[in-house]
Amino acid sequence: MLKYQQVANQIELYIEQHQLQQGTKLPVLESLMDEFSASKSTIIKALDLLEKKGLIFQVRGSGIFVRRKSRMGYINLLSNQGFKKDLEEFDITSEMLQLDVVKPTQEVADNLQIDYDQGVYYVKRIRYINGQTLCVEESYYDKSVVTYLNKQIVTESIFHYVTEGLGLNIGFSEMYIKTGKLTEEEANYLHLKQGDPKLVMESIFFLSNGKPFDFSKVTYNYEQSQFFLLGSGI
Amino acid sequence: MLKYQQVANQIELYIEQHQLQQGTKLPVLESLMDEFSASKSTIIKALDLLEKKGLIFQVRGSGIFVRRKSRMGYINLLSNQGFKKDLEEFDITSEMLQLDVVKPTQEVADNLQIDYDQGVYYVKRIRYINGQTLCVEESYYDKSVVTYLNKQIVTESIFHYVTEGLGLNIGFSEMYIKTGKLTEEEANYLHLKQGDPKLVMESIFFLSNGKPFDFSKVTYNYEQSQFFLLGSGI
Repeated sequence: MLKYQQVANQIELYIEQHQLQQGTKLPVLESLMDEFSASKSTIIKALDLLEKKGLIFQVRGSGIFVRRKSRMGYINLLSNQGFKKDLEEFDITSEMLQLDVVKPTQEVADNLQIDYDQGVYYVKRIRYINGQTLCVEESYYDKSVVTYLNKQIVTESIFHYVTEGLGLNIGFSEMYIKTGKLTEEEANYLHLKQGDPKLVMESIFFLSNGKPFDFSKVTYNYEQSQFFLLGSGI
Repeated sequence: MLKYQQVANQIELYIEQHQLQQGTKLPVLESLMDEFSASKSTIIKALDLLEKKGLIFQVRGSGIFVRRKSRMGYINLLSNQGFKKDLEEFDITSEMLQLDVVKPTQEVADNLQIDYDQGVYYVKRIRYINGQTLCVEESYYDKSVVTYLNKQIVTESIFHYVTEGLGLNIGFSEMYIKTGKLTEEEANYLHLKQGDPKLVMESIFFLSNGKPFDFSKVTYNYEQSQFFLLGSGI
């Protein structure tokens, strides 16, 4: 972990432990530099990270302020850390339905920017929240990047394995969201009725060098799924 | 517009006009400083803005690269510029159903962080895309911030008016997304059937000083609504 990430984590911990409220002003840059024995550029990078995560906002010429805590029980659309982090207070489990090395379809090859004859890991899982179905998930991993997967990794956290086990840096992601009606097969997996609402999220995750390595399609149980998103002022 | 925003706009225009493809390397920092007669810190801020907007990605020690253009016809969840910018190729219109000054409900007062006896503008609109219903929208504006609205503003773009007309700086936003089934009233507005799927998005927009000024609830026609989101590697 880089110095600025450590500093960001320490400031985040401080806000949580002291239960600082929306609008509370944080110390000025110079005080933070002293506090964390860090350079100005390190503090600025740490604050930018916290702003991206929606924990603070910076007002030019006025200071750095704590941002209101978001509603509980919602999944952060921009978190690359999976559900577990957002839904800590809930019991999230996974059931693996399939794990295979397959040839990609055209859609998968296009999204992963690979050739048709390259192998991909295909993973199908159902996720549960407090014993209720949360979503059914189909993921495709470029096997030249994610070189190995097994049942235990897939049942636990693939993203934890990718970053910690394989040491890869996740750079950015694209997400596409649609709503529609459940097919019979999807309804069976989710214990709902055919024609009930569904939210479908397609995600592509890229390494920090720009290589896409994960293309996922997730179909959510409409009764369980709530999402949130913190935007900056672009 | 600040210098770094101008530089960012010029780089964005350059990428569009030259139709640069995903992975194309941009000139190094020093060349950009020369090109735009700008300081290092201005170029860095411009690049950070472009990265946030999902137009480029930066690889440490390697360079700055163009990011793939996202799928067409999807609405950017993180754009504060309304639909029009994302759906330029479509014909988007608004029909105003109601414009009133009202007392806020508890939910509205909580989200706008105001007292119950403060007035808010209540705006109800239907949006159309190519003549089909896109969404029905209920918005509440803190009247102490958005001091004036009329039918023409509401039918055109409220956000354009808020930033250009009132000169306010939009700082950040929170969005909450749920799916469910349409009520009879919602179905009538959207020309769909009661019980059909819906996507409901609640948004709170804040000024750059942290003051919330707009709380909106938008119910989307599931047949028309597609959203995308570009994430950075937090």
